[in-house]
Amino acid sequence: MIKTQQIRINTKGSCEVVNLTEQVLSAMTGAGISDGIVTLFVVGSTAGITTTEYEPGLVNHDIADLFDKIAPSGAGYRHEQTWNDDNGHSHLRASLLGPCLTVPIIGGELSLGTWQQIVLIEFDTRPRTRTIICQFIGQ
Amino acid sequence: MIKTQQIRINTKGSCEVVNLTEQVLSAMTGAGISDGIVTLFVVGSTAGITTTEYEPGLVNHDIADLFDKIAPSGAGYRHEQTWNDDNGHSHLRASLLGPCLTVPIIGGELSLGTWQQIVLIEFDTRPRTRTIICQFIGQ
Amino acid sequence: MIKTQQIRINTKGSCEVVNLTEQVLSAMTGAGISDGIVTLFVVGSTAGITTTEYEPGLVNHDIADLFDKIAPSGAGYRHEQTWNDDNGHSHLRASLLGPCLTVPIIGGELSLGTWQQIVLIEFDTRPRTRTIICQFIGQ
Repeated sequence: MIKTQQIRINTKGSCEVVNLTEQVLSAMTGAGISDGIVTLFVVGSTAGITTTEYEPGLVNHDIADLFDKIAPSGAGYRHEQTWNDDNGHSHLRASLLGPCLTVPIIGGELSLGTWQQIVLIEFDTRPRTRTIICQFIGQ
Repeated sequence: MIKTQQIRINTKGSCEVVNLTEQVLSAMTGAGISDGIVTLFVVGSTAGITTTEYEPGLVNHDIADLFDKIAPSGAGYRHEQTWNDDNGHSHLRASLLGPCLTVPIIGGELSLGTWQQIVLIEFDTRPRTRTIICQFIGQ
Repeated sequence: MIKTQQIRINTKGSCEVVNLTEQVLSAMTGAGISDGIVTLFVVGSTAGITTTEYEPGLVNHDIADLFDKIAPSGAGYRHEQTWNDDNGHSHLRASLLGPCLTVPIIGGELSLGTWQQIVLIEFDTRPRTRTIICQFIGQ
């Protein structure tokens, strides 16, 4: 059984970390899948998906500091010369983190740890409306 | 056909790199799947899964050095102020690497290269017991 | 329905970024899948797969600069002492980025954004012939 659901969110930009877990659970209920996998995929090349403990220290400070160090903004990226824009670092961070996450579903539950939430990281420099595909495969 | 298997391991902490390949192969035999995919997912937010050549230089030295450089321990993480603990860097490394890996299965074999093994990296600062979900989808 | 296709490419080494999107679309047509997922997996431990906007600034300059900073070549890697070779950094970059990508397929289309292409990054230090497994699951 293959079922597609979509999550739509508005983000603020600049390494905002958005907790998607509740929306993925709702999508799972909507899909009626109790065993299988869900593939989450963010459409676009300046955001990424991963898991983290959703607590204020990590999501409001440490994750942003990590990516500021890995790929700082305003570092003379050639991408910005191509388009005369300001988000070269956003693209690099998104490619490094990756746009997809696959989570097993067992007995009607996502196989996450207690302190492990599914998050989107918005790397772009401005607010965006994001579409996350939830592709369920299972029974 | 959907089959769930679990791998349980004890880790030592501090960037230990554990070779999971044999256990994934055993799980595949147990699941009786010859063509499809296996999704590996580590439960918890301070470990990650990827592939590497499992040789002593990389797994005992270089991989740890890489993550020490990307997210050093003791760098004043806000996460540690939230919980008064010491593993802010463990969370950051785990989120960056990601908790999941999907490997194709073709004709009863994992599609790995000869020098490509499936590994868990334990980023936490202490020994842990880890559960890795192996979700097989195929025939 | 499970269908396996393979993509074979020749790469130049040294952070060449190869656009795989057209070949994945061809493989999808060959597989005859209109809804499901495709798991892309590069065989070998010195290349990775992700998505990016395929424009010259990013793919000819910025992505290479990012990985040169994260894991520079010639930094005394223990891997190179093991084998007396020169690609320790290639292995580290590949493990960090990861060998796999899963993309949803909806109504006969990959769920990519307009400026989001599927790419292989060749981290090895010499030209390679690469095999990318495309494992389609769907209907």
